[in-house]
Amino acid sequence: MNDTICALATPQGGAISIVRISGPQAIEYTSRIFTPRKGASLAERKSHTAVFGDVCVVPGELLDEVLVTVMRAPYTYTGEDVVEISCHASSYITQQLMLALLGLGARQADPGEFTMRAFLNGKMDLSRAEAVADLIASSSKASHRLAMNQLKGDFSNELAGLRNKLLKLTTLMELELDFSEEDVTFADRSDLMQLCDEIDGVMTRLTDSFAVGNAVKNGVPVAIVGETNAGKSTLLNALLREDRAIVSDISGTTRDTIEGVMNIGGTSFRFIDTAGLRETSDIVEQMGIERTVGELKKSSIALWVVDPAADYTQMEITAKKILPECKDKKLAILINKSDTIRGERLGEIIEWGKSLVTECGEDIIWNSDDIWAISARQGTNMARLEEFLVRSAALPAISNGDVVVTNVRHYEALTRALANIKDVKHGLGIGLSGDLVSEHLRATIHNLSEIVGEVTNDEVLGNIFANFCIGK
Amino acid sequence: MNDTICALATPQGGAISIVRISGPQAIEYTSRIFTPRKGASLAERKSHTAVFGDVCVVPGELLDEVLVTVMRAPYTYTGEDVVEISCHASSYITQQLMLALLGLGARQADPGEFTMRAFLNGKMDLSRAEAVADLIASSSKASHRLAMNQLKGDFSNELAGLRNKLLKLTTLMELELDFSEEDVTFADRSDLMQLCDEIDGVMTRLTDSFAVGNAVKNGVPVAIVGETNAGKSTLLNALLREDRAIVSDISGTTRDTIEGVMNIGGTSFRFIDTAGLRETSDIVEQMGIERTVGELKKSSIALWVVDPAADYTQMEITAKKILPECKDKKLAILINKSDTIRGERLGEIIEWGKSLVTECGEDIIWNSDDIWAISARQGTNMARLEEFLVRSAALPAISNGDVVVTNVRHYEALTRALANIKDVKHGLGIGLSGDLVSEHLRATIHNLSEIVGEVTNDEVLGNIFANFCIGK
Repeated sequence: MNDTICALATPQGGAISIVRISGPQAIEYTSRIFTPRKGASLAERKSHTAVFGDVCVVPGELLDEVLVTVMRAPYTYTGEDVVEISCHASSYITQQLMLALLGLGARQADPGEFTMRAFLNGKMDLSRAEAVADLIASSSKASHRLAMNQLKGDFSNELAGLRNKLLKLTTLMELELDFSEEDVTFADRSDLMQLCDEIDGVMTRLTDSFAVGNAVKNGVPVAIVGETNAGKSTLLNALLREDRAIVSDISGTTRDTIEGVMNIGGTSFRFIDTAGLRETSDIVEQMGIERTVGELKKSSIALWVVDPAADYTQMEITAKKILPECKDKKLAILINKSDTIRGERLGEIIEWGKSLVTECGEDIIWNSDDIWAISARQGTNMARLEEFLVRSAALPAISNGDVVVTNVRHYEALTRALANIKDVKHGLGIGLSGDLVSEHLRATIHNLSEIVGEVTNDEVLGNIFANFCIGK
Repeated sequence: MNDTICALATPQGGAISIVRISGPQAIEYTSRIFTPRKGASLAERKSHTAVFGDVCVVPGELLDEVLVTVMRAPYTYTGEDVVEISCHASSYITQQLMLALLGLGARQADPGEFTMRAFLNGKMDLSRAEAVADLIASSSKASHRLAMNQLKGDFSNELAGLRNKLLKLTTLMELELDFSEEDVTFADRSDLMQLCDEIDGVMTRLTDSFAVGNAVKNGVPVAIVGETNAGKSTLLNALLREDRAIVSDISGTTRDTIEGVMNIGGTSFRFIDTAGLRETSDIVEQMGIERTVGELKKSSIALWVVDPAADYTQMEITAKKILPECKDKKLAILINKSDTIRGERLGEIIEWGKSLVTECGEDIIWNSDDIWAISARQGTNMARLEEFLVRSAALPAISNGDVVVTNVRHYEALTRALANIKDVKHGLGIGLSGDLVSEHLRATIHNLSEIVGEVTNDEVLGNIFANFCIGK
């Protein structure tokens, strides 16, 4: 933390690139390569001023004309002296600039290291620091709202409320402990139990919100399944409007699962194109089929793609593999290559599909409209599919201030906290002694402290910030 | 020019995005969506200050915490009020920010419009404005140096020097005209001729420099030619270290020419993968072959790729097509798929290749070492190829202050100016009357004025700035 870090904060390309420097020598290092076009040197400038001037990394050779913004500790993002150099977006210029700073003694920042320093310098707690990465990754209104609520501290405040309740509970328990020899019960156990129920309620609400939070943040998972060569990859490409999956007429082209995220009607969907289902002796392909079933289990919507020209006996075999895995999922059966089907044939296939679902999928969320013909290649009836997806996702609207857990780490810590508070309740229920109960109570508080980073270690921090981009 | 423009100046991704606003309402529009976290409103801030605060595009809903830099006319890039908003690099945030600014009355900037305004407001002449785009595109030391010399005004100064000479010449000519009836020759014609020679010399040096300037800026053109299926696309991919060209075992896969630029040993090379040369009845492929010969003519280095397993009779036919087109070019013959050749066979092929070059390529720049075996797929002997390329390119080093023409527009204007000054010389030589000679003189001055933008029109400006990126 005593060293000075630097990183390119913008991707290659565009008009402007930003090199960001933070640490005790940020201003000094910049001064060595930067000369203001007029006026005082950088060291004499006030905080939060932008200075136009020249960068020379080799004496006498102008590298670029840049705008340098100086910000002095502690009122900066990291809490340290911060300099941002706004230069022309040439790969040569940014490379030379970075090399010069490294040559002067700065260190290339690790991913998220600016934000980690902000956390370590007490500018924000850990859950807010994590929200910075989510905010940058946000691409829809809902995911932006969740990240922003977390960055503003709504989640931290909710946790602080929980913590206050837990501390009150601890105080009451400890009073009981202090006077235990006198056999006086200061804390009314039913009051304690009521407080536990409240805490349990809030924690349950938070852990339950993760399903929504995860879908908003990472996209509603939609599995595209069906026979080989039914056109699943073509459908994925049509949904993503790009050539993501390799499409060919050779059966079994897609062996790995291929994913793509697309925002449809304000909701992010994560489409998972899976290996085709068919009886096969190819080991690689069989592994693909196992993955397909796995993906299906993790998804909340399943799109079953049917090739109207396929062998129906064979299809019934695979249908009986697919449909039982669609329990509690929303299902649509898409009869692809609609341009190749004559009218009455379509009716037959639809009836066949309906009877199959009726036969083997009683727990599937399905109604008889959810089977229709499309042409993924020609875009026919794709609007109907998008409408089905939006309707099936039906995520609750996120309001300003709503607290929704979106982070796996938070979810896991809350799940542990919930288990511990349930142990507390159990202990109270069976009249366990105060010291045994308060052990679980301390564990609960510890779990919450992990979320905001009051207790943490280098490994945890390393894992969290490794997922950040460089320059943030 | 009375409106306010805005654009995203950074590409999607990274940690930070910059939205740039320029024009009379730049500060007002920003104020409507931005509230400083503390202190005075944006309108009351001094020029060149950075202000931290909140952006709300919908009242009460925080879109982002941003850093806003205010710069007031005229000491800004465009000469107008400029605001830069540095926000979190989320696609949702930048989109909402841009939409809000457009909603307030700002206009999406055209490509290069910030720089065009800088030119129109007299912040820089046209050749310096063009250097901004070259500077951003520069990816090597040499291309950076050329762009920076031009941006600093070295080229403009050279032109100003030429212009002074031309004005001196004009003054002398006009004196002669004024007193023409009196049959007095004020200007000694041999003095005039000497001045013309000087101007001619400078212009010739500048136009000649374009060959180097173009190679530095766009890369030294290297044509990869040879039989179909010799592995030309594989070689391109190996040189570029990416899967740029579609590679397959089917002859004639590459029908269009495919290009890629790679910096090797500090020099940029533009590799052009061409359609394979073979006798063919396929019209599309025949067109490809015509293009191949065209590309070969434009290149300065030719790599002829030979498949050791090919039919040699056929290859001799195509060699006799290729080699005459390699006049004045540096040639290397690469025997590809070296892993498939036995030792003595390689010796035979090398002798065959040498005799072919001797037979039909007397103007080729070639020595007998310039034929060897490689394996593009396995990377064998690729270092030798890179060494050959760097040695063959041998571009002169560009020094600080060197004036080299890199811009086609400048080259064309200079070529026209050179033709005009030659007409002046011719006129003086055959004793043409002063008024006829000075017509060509005015045309020469006009040509130079076009370069720096003293005379210009909307169409020319439109073409120049259309090649800029948005946000610059």
